[in-house]
Amino acid sequence: MTTSAPIKLRVFSLNCWGIRYLTKLRKERFHMIGDLLYNEQFDVILLQEVWCETDVLFLKQKLSSVYPHSHHFKSGFIGSGLVVFSKHRIQDAFLYRYSLNGYPYMAQHGDWFGGKAVGKILLDISGLAVHVFVTHLHAEYCRERDSYLPHRVVQAWELQQFIRHTSAGADVVILGGDLNMHPDDLGTRLLRNCTGLLDCFTETANFDGCEGGNTHISENPFTNPHELVPFGGGVRIDYILFKSLGPVDVSCESLSTTKGPIPGQPFSYSDHEALTAEFLLTTNKKGRGCPDREFGCFPDKLPDLVNTVNEARTEVKVGLHCAERMRHTAARTGIMGLVLLLLELAIAAVPLFALAPEQPFPKASFYLLGVLCIAVLLFASLLYIFYTMEVKALQGAEDEMRLAITSLQERLKESHKGLSWGHLQNPIVGQDPGHLQADNST
Amino acid sequence: MTTSAPIKLRVFSLNCWGIRYLTKLRKERFHMIGDLLYNEQFDVILLQEVWCETDVLFLKQKLSSVYPHSHHFKSGFIGSGLVVFSKHRIQDAFLYRYSLNGYPYMAQHGDWFGGKAVGKILLDISGLAVHVFVTHLHAEYCRERDSYLPHRVVQAWELQQFIRHTSAGADVVILGGDLNMHPDDLGTRLLRNCTGLLDCFTETANFDGCEGGNTHISENPFTNPHELVPFGGGVRIDYILFKSLGPVDVSCESLSTTKGPIPGQPFSYSDHEALTAEFLLTTNKKGRGCPDREFGCFPDKLPDLVNTVNEARTEVKVGLHCAERMRHTAARTGIMGLVLLLLELAIAAVPLFALAPEQPFPKASFYLLGVLCIAVLLFASLLYIFYTMEVKALQGAEDEMRLAITSLQERLKESHKGLSWGHLQNPIVGQDPGHLQADNST
Repeated sequence: MTTSAPIKLRVFSLNCWGIRYLTKLRKERFHMIGDLLYNEQFDVILLQEVWCETDVLFLKQKLSSVYPHSHHFKSGFIGSGLVVFSKHRIQDAFLYRYSLNGYPYMAQHGDWFGGKAVGKILLDISGLAVHVFVTHLHAEYCRERDSYLPHRVVQAWELQQFIRHTSAGADVVILGGDLNMHPDDLGTRLLRNCTGLLDCFTETANFDGCEGGNTHISENPFTNPHELVPFGGGVRIDYILFKSLGPVDVSCESLSTTKGPIPGQPFSYSDHEALTAEFLLTTNKKGRGCPDREFGCFPDKLPDLVNTVNEARTEVKVGLHCAERMRHTAARTGIMGLVLLLLELAIAAVPLFALAPEQPFPKASFYLLGVLCIAVLLFASLLYIFYTMEVKALQGAEDEMRLAITSLQERLKESHKGLSWGHLQNPIVGQDPGHLQADNST
Repeated sequence: MTTSAPIKLRVFSLNCWGIRYLTKLRKERFHMIGDLLYNEQFDVILLQEVWCETDVLFLKQKLSSVYPHSHHFKSGFIGSGLVVFSKHRIQDAFLYRYSLNGYPYMAQHGDWFGGKAVGKILLDISGLAVHVFVTHLHAEYCRERDSYLPHRVVQAWELQQFIRHTSAGADVVILGGDLNMHPDDLGTRLLRNCTGLLDCFTETANFDGCEGGNTHISENPFTNPHELVPFGGGVRIDYILFKSLGPVDVSCESLSTTKGPIPGQPFSYSDHEALTAEFLLTTNKKGRGCPDREFGCFPDKLPDLVNTVNEARTEVKVGLHCAERMRHTAARTGIMGLVLLLLELAIAAVPLFALAPEQPFPKASFYLLGVLCIAVLLFASLLYIFYTMEVKALQGAEDEMRLAITSLQERLKESHKGLSWGHLQNPIVGQDPGHLQADNST
């Protein structure tokens, strides 16, 4: 901390929808995005879904004079799609790849190939340690029967773990990206409650943008309006969140979104709306706030937090049940393939021992069946390995959640005793911690 | 910080060699390990290679009265093999899975299936935030032609990234585990130089154990002594490292290892020797030391650090070259399979257009060749996806290293100018930072 005058910080976030061959007018849109970023004076730019190396290079070249610092986070087969540009020197970068991210055989959804992750960059802005995170979670393809929900909940869990554990040394934390979750979805609540991050949309007095802060709207020429009818024509799934940890006050002075068609431009930048947040960082002599490594610094928020983690744990358990069932199916199919193969081999061996020198089967069908058995066996084995890894990752997340609930409970008990929370402003009255207990069954 | 009396902390680390069906006397050894841990008074126990769930459950049951807190980190197909037991409440746990960890088709080595990772637990010991890390890196199967070296270097890089980024809020940091690297290997230097972690073996005045602190020795009945001949009969690949970050002095009072055969026991605990370190934590009013998020707090160590990261980057580039070549081979093989398949289809189509109604090929060979083409195409595609992911992970690590070198260089320049290092005790004299520049070619 060497600063005292307030610092303005402009942060931009956009899901660029940059899939090679598949997204409309990609090249033209990236030219428009490049122009926008070049002309506007942002401090930090957080881009998602920049899947093509050519687009990354184009933007780097175009913006090098205005934003001399950039980092492209690489992961997965075509990912991670996350790119950051900054006016300030990027001192350090670190990537965390989510342990679960869809299924490789769901190629039409493609998330698995994207290697979804959360990237972190470390900036020194006038002596303040500003930790900026950018992420993109698994998409939601069907809200009613969302088979990816456990994966997205685990991603949200890992995201909050990563932010909490890596930002203890930060003065300011900023997270931007496409969370693919509505504001009140389990994952969003989990992220907000665990980290204490504040939502720019709810925190700012100056909002200029789509109704409800929506970032995926039917007015956008690249979206299918029918998909958004159940949600009143739009959803809010892209966010900029923030918090202060050091001796500095952070306020979100304004938030704006693009509103579908861009005036004076032939089309929109993307199928998502872009977000721009303006922060004011003011020195505060009070010293460091609640240390990030501690869950639930505010005892009045503990019961909510315990409930949210419990809810997430239930969802992970549902996912675990499904993954175990799928693994069981893969095992059964594999065994079936093996048994059929052994049967075939036995049939093939019959003429060796029997008197009849002739093969009882037509040769072509015999070979074809053999090949089919081997193929089934191989694919079932691959799937069995994949589902076991899914089970392990889900179990791991569930274990971490159980541990967190136990820790929070302990803190809740302490706050009830009033031992550690002498400074408590809003003590929790008449709340029995018993009903917030972790279910220790495994 | 609520403490003032010195605190003793006993940490135990062992690679348990617990592979189902494959390792000798597994059950008996785990009984012995359980007895040892039960009888000794450790504060924290860090175990690696506990691959079987039954062994985890056995230890948990056996030790629950002495070490009421434990955490099993889960990852990969049978991993991560990392288990922690603690006398002190585990407040929080977090796992980072390494992005690279061998190849799934190298099943005889099996590392890929182990899902190697680094686990972190957070303890509150008399008011001190003690962050304990446990890890196990990819094994070294042939030191002369070690094809896994780039993977292990990337793992060491990610390990130091994880420790640096997650321990800014720690008072004490302890890392234990099987690094599968000798004390002067690139990865070990990278880890030590980047994090500032100190090696118990070199720091303690009281060492009792194998010569040179070796943990993999020819005297151990489970090791093949011939393998260790080139290394003088033993190597040191298991470590306990530590550092202090908060207002506390940490010293390693003693370090001991087991010495192969255990007196009074029929066999050794494992094919590795166990490590026991005793720490003394003494309050120090000077306040927080060098913040963890900053690389190279000591300017006199900066040139060394830059050189080490540069060396690691070169190794990653070698790995990248190999991975790109393998990907190229996979692509070529896949294309060959596709061309052959198309050729077959063309041959099959000939009778439809030609006058001769007969297939020019014997049917069985025709089908067999077709199946072979499809199999080649499929496997080549899977390998192409795998190698592309390897390329991305290596590129990602290399980018992070380049960024780190640029950051360190800036700091080196500043230290030369003497602007930011007014407090400098040992200024770097006569050292030109130019030769330490990051090679910005990509």
